[in-house]
Amino acid sequence: MSAIPWKARGASHLECTWTGETFDSEQLMGLSPAGRPLFARYDLDTIRRHFRPGDLEGRRPDLWRYEEVLPVRVPECQLSLGEGWTPLTDAPRLARRYGMRRLWVKNEGMNPTGSFKDRGLCLAVSRAKELGAKELAIPTAGNAGSAAAAYGAAGGLPVHIVAPNDTPATIVEEIQGLGADLVLMDGLITDCGKVVREGADYMGWWDLSTLKEPYRVEGKKTMGYEVFEQLGFRLPDAVIYPTGGGTGLIGMWKAFDEMERMGWIGSERPKMFSVQPTGCAPVVRAWQDGTEAARFWDDAETYAAGLRVPAAVGDFLMLRAIRESGGGAVAIEDAAMAEAVRAMGECTGIFACPEGGAVLAAVPELKEMGLLSEDDETVLFNTGSGLKYVGMTPVESG
Amino acid sequence: MSAIPWKARGASHLECTWTGETFDSEQLMGLSPAGRPLFARYDLDTIRRHFRPGDLEGRRPDLWRYEEVLPVRVPECQLSLGEGWTPLTDAPRLARRYGMRRLWVKNEGMNPTGSFKDRGLCLAVSRAKELGAKELAIPTAGNAGSAAAAYGAAGGLPVHIVAPNDTPATIVEEIQGLGADLVLMDGLITDCGKVVREGADYMGWWDLSTLKEPYRVEGKKTMGYEVFEQLGFRLPDAVIYPTGGGTGLIGMWKAFDEMERMGWIGSERPKMFSVQPTGCAPVVRAWQDGTEAARFWDDAETYAAGLRVPAAVGDFLMLRAIRESGGGAVAIEDAAMAEAVRAMGECTGIFACPEGGAVLAAVPELKEMGLLSEDDETVLFNTGSGLKYVGMTPVESG
Repeated sequence: MSAIPWKARGASHLECTWTGETFDSEQLMGLSPAGRPLFARYDLDTIRRHFRPGDLEGRRPDLWRYEEVLPVRVPECQLSLGEGWTPLTDAPRLARRYGMRRLWVKNEGMNPTGSFKDRGLCLAVSRAKELGAKELAIPTAGNAGSAAAAYGAAGGLPVHIVAPNDTPATIVEEIQGLGADLVLMDGLITDCGKVVREGADYMGWWDLSTLKEPYRVEGKKTMGYEVFEQLGFRLPDAVIYPTGGGTGLIGMWKAFDEMERMGWIGSERPKMFSVQPTGCAPVVRAWQDGTEAARFWDDAETYAAGLRVPAAVGDFLMLRAIRESGGGAVAIEDAAMAEAVRAMGECTGIFACPEGGAVLAAVPELKEMGLLSEDDETVLFNTGSGLKYVGMTPVESG
Repeated sequence: MSAIPWKARGASHLECTWTGETFDSEQLMGLSPAGRPLFARYDLDTIRRHFRPGDLEGRRPDLWRYEEVLPVRVPECQLSLGEGWTPLTDAPRLARRYGMRRLWVKNEGMNPTGSFKDRGLCLAVSRAKELGAKELAIPTAGNAGSAAAAYGAAGGLPVHIVAPNDTPATIVEEIQGLGADLVLMDGLITDCGKVVREGADYMGWWDLSTLKEPYRVEGKKTMGYEVFEQLGFRLPDAVIYPTGGGTGLIGMWKAFDEMERMGWIGSERPKMFSVQPTGCAPVVRAWQDGTEAARFWDDAETYAAGLRVPAAVGDFLMLRAIRESGGGAVAIEDAAMAEAVRAMGECTGIFACPEGGAVLAAVPELKEMGLLSEDDETVLFNTGSGLKYVGMTPVESG
């Protein structure tokens, strides 16, 4: 049951984000030959004639409402557990407490496994199934593992998950409850990635690592389409987003570009802000140093498991988006995150994850730095539910 | 921004579920003078002329889409965190494993605080705010406390939560993160209820206990409207539901009655099945004994915190619905619940709560008892996310 009457379904090709080289989109492909992420491209000149914002009214309340700009062609492969179309909650009391005119919270905790990772893995697993992958694997600091396990189960594909042995107990039990094969190891997500690569090389696992296949970013980009649609077909002044691998920020930036090519918006963009923990802030350091890419962060440490990412293959894409948008990057202490989680709870009723707390805690910092003004209508991303981090909070939150 | 062009918004009156006596709906009222639950009634003869199933298309993706049959009149009091309109997931692999033609899972774990309790507390807190309550209080075995805390925070009303000291740590941290006042005590939810009543008597707290105010059931009834709408405006053959206080089962039964009065359906009803743990099964015992009400269950014990309810004020309403529908009641062992949680995870990608596992485990039992047939199109209610029970599972689920 497709909303598309014409025959332009799916991507037109894949493109290397570094060299611009193009490839056939209908084959399983990871990184480009240049070792860089691939983006799915669409025939937007055709699509723009058939797909307008007004067409979205009354569509299904999940990310598949944007199927014209998503790559999955076979309806049976459009796996769904109700991912996306999360509430964009107006938070007047929170705005008052933080001295802002208007704050919105995009509550990604309401995804099927309680985090924004569901968007990316929904698309990546759906597309892997469509293109014939038989076994999936993913290195994860936590939430991505839950999401991969859930969509693997939904699609009937076995999933191997490799995670650090300090992954929250909640997430471990969730992954096991979803029937995935879980390997816990001593190390960071980057070490887990090596194990997955070996499984890919020797056992034919399909590697779902962040940006090492082209489709997780396609799922994440729907956050950009949703913010635009939920604000009544316009963009906010600023978006504050916690970046580990950064797929969400990169994906939204890609979505804005697609919207402009479809004539939905002009050249305007929100200021894009990246938030990282002081214990692992490679992108913040690179932004401050003015470098094109980020250096590996030694001894990464933070209770925000999703931000314990010392090196990201998409670092240069994040830095591009932050700079082109006139945004910035800021690092937050774990204790400040926990405090902000409590403030968000009291003022909105949303029980945020530490990453969501980091984003809120960044508001005064960014104002102090002169990068964010009181009048900037700002969207804060709470990327997951606080339920997944219970017992990990560094300070007494009672 | 109301979808109602005419002036029949809200309830017409309150009615005692035992005596039929009626009362003004625009005042704060708990139990009836007879000490029984009150139901909100609507002018359905007028509403049926203005509200038809087809009107629902394209409405907001939360329970407020049914505002014509909800009691809150003031839009500013319609508190919302994105509750309801949860996915009704077709589960063919699960159906095959359990020898059923068709199984649907209504995944209430996707509510704002991860459980179906959000529906009831959304309505109860919205209505309490509208009618001028200043402080709220609730006894809870867990999830209802999270929901009350969330909507209290959303509405800016202080909430006092009284819970047993064996309440899951996850829920305790969530409630504290939402800024509510939490009192943990040695005892069952029935004991907690006594403390709340004292707070109501001496401190003017508004008591949100199950069915002791008329509006939680109004929120819960929306599950019945949603199943009807999501199945394409028809009802399933059977509904299997875990009953603690039983508001959900009672609410759906009320919804079906309203739908018939509005001419949406005829006299047909799904078979309604109540599932309880073997360690606390007062309704199952009463159904077996053929009594009109249930006796207090001594030494209640189960890891399904939401079903550790030894006495329910709505027992007679549950038993009526079960009997009038030609359904039944069955008790499930904790270990069988945990096993079924794993089966649901593997076959659907949904990480269920123990209560959801109980409902699935009831399928073979009810078939064995001859109450459910392989051909019955059945809706299973997973009333919450497994995330809220992590660490409580009685058997190894790895």
